[in-house]
Amino acid sequence: MKKALGIDIGGTKLVYAIIGENGEFLSEIKKIPTPRTADAIFEQLKSLAKEFEKEVDVIAMASAGAVNRENTRVCSSTPNLPEGYNKLDFSLLSDKKVFVENDANAAAWAEYKLGAAKGCDFSLIITLGTGIGAGVINEGKLVRGKSGAALEVGSMKISADRQRKCTCHRYDCWESYGSGTGLQTTAREFAKKSPEFANSLLNSKNPDELTTYDVVDGVKAGDAFSKKVFDLWQDHIYTGLVSLVDIFDPECVVISGGMGEFIDISALEAKVNAELVVPPMKLKLAQMKNNAGMVGAALLALGV
Amino acid sequence: MKKALGIDIGGTKLVYAIIGENGEFLSEIKKIPTPRTADAIFEQLKSLAKEFEKEVDVIAMASAGAVNRENTRVCSSTPNLPEGYNKLDFSLLSDKKVFVENDANAAAWAEYKLGAAKGCDFSLIITLGTGIGAGVINEGKLVRGKSGAALEVGSMKISADRQRKCTCHRYDCWESYGSGTGLQTTAREFAKKSPEFANSLLNSKNPDELTTYDVVDGVKAGDAFSKKVFDLWQDHIYTGLVSLVDIFDPECVVISGGMGEFIDISALEAKVNAELVVPPMKLKLAQMKNNAGMVGAALLALGV
Repeated sequence: MKKALGIDIGGTKLVYAIIGENGEFLSEIKKIPTPRTADAIFEQLKSLAKEFEKEVDVIAMASAGAVNRENTRVCSSTPNLPEGYNKLDFSLLSDKKVFVENDANAAAWAEYKLGAAKGCDFSLIITLGTGIGAGVINEGKLVRGKSGAALEVGSMKISADRQRKCTCHRYDCWESYGSGTGLQTTAREFAKKSPEFANSLLNSKNPDELTTYDVVDGVKAGDAFSKKVFDLWQDHIYTGLVSLVDIFDPECVVISGGMGEFIDISALEAKVNAELVVPPMKLKLAQMKNNAGMVGAALLALGV
Repeated sequence: MKKALGIDIGGTKLVYAIIGENGEFLSEIKKIPTPRTADAIFEQLKSLAKEFEKEVDVIAMASAGAVNRENTRVCSSTPNLPEGYNKLDFSLLSDKKVFVENDANAAAWAEYKLGAAKGCDFSLIITLGTGIGAGVINEGKLVRGKSGAALEVGSMKISADRQRKCTCHRYDCWESYGSGTGLQTTAREFAKKSPEFANSLLNSKNPDELTTYDVVDGVKAGDAFSKKVFDLWQDHIYTGLVSLVDIFDPECVVISGGMGEFIDISALEAKVNAELVVPPMKLKLAQMKNNAGMVGAALLALGV
């Protein structure tokens, strides 16, 4: 049985383990801090590849950013990784086969092969976290686009009116409303204009310092202001999701990422299905946890 | 060489001709009115199939609506065709192979095989007319989705605020802003609230009776009000287009349909490329004319 060294390249840490053809971990999962320069990241990855090259058949990485069609480098900008990162040629890391895939695509592949989308050859997997990512399986294959940059759904515009500036400099990106960061922005904006904030459990806080966690805690405590903010956020997710389901016509949609667990899945499923051109789709929570990216990259690299 | 009877099933007319493997017309292009009931449409198609069955190898149809994966019936509602149309089983029309494809998908295939997207294995083709349709070629194949209903981009929401009700009953569909009908709605809304309408060449008209043609004529005559409405319309097209290009990462985007010719292609191309996560894409005007749907359906049915 073939084995991969799976590596998840995050903004703060590199996570790695040896992974088998069934997605199983054949070693401990280890974490080290992500080096601060692109060159240092390259050297660190090279040293990991060297350390494991006798034990594995391929080096498989999941990374933020759009990955080229050859799966050898990242070709978009990556705000959470050092400058020059998108100049690195990962194929030079090792004499073994080296394979890199966008983390959302890789996680989508893991959900398709082993998780909530198992058996669904038409699936859309959305990652809701600090940002929004997505991957699509169409006829059992990842949709990657001409340069591997497809499914940049975080940049989908949910307004034509330049209402909210996104951290990416564009306006009205879905991500600026539907991500965790988006929920926080909505809370801060709403606190300043809504009279309900005065009666909120959160009213001792500075509106400009409200966080996603404050809102989530407020909802749990039955706070009406928090509930309104949360409903606005779910509406924003709904708005983008309806569009994507009409665009891809998937059998199932999987919600993953840290913010996913807060969503009322059955309510959102019913609301989306009521609007689709051709319903239904099945909405599910992801089954793969944090390591979906490296598992998916490993499976893709191993040809599974 | 194999031949297809190509039929375009429109809300007002059926257009048909014999088409060869290179997309060439091997007969006159004929038009007859679309019968007023689903059953009468079926009988009409059956009689056409009978008339040509000795001359052709397949019966190929392009139709509005989402077409099932077997390419035998329409599985969505089709507002411009009679009730019951989506219950028809086209496979029963003839003993010859019968093939039906969504008209936007079929037109996209024709542009890919013979027109402006020739050679581009990653293409997005947008049809701007009374409504908005689209087809995507990814790795040289049409993206169809689980039930052939993918690329219902007209329903993509470009606002989360329930600003404009679409003819399809949903709110804020891209189609309700970016289509010809959308331009007309924008003109009527804007005439009622903009002081510029008083000085417009169109000011003798009732705002509620303004048409797309009035605006297009106004732009040609240098009318400032018309120009503003037209720019709003182009902004609406831009908003949806940026999202779709980030979603599919195509090499080239082709604009077809009756409204396409009014667009400033190079300005729109530059504006979209300035916003993409991974630019560039090439924006082009369609080369295939009105019969792209039936030609594309014929090529698909013939396996070309």
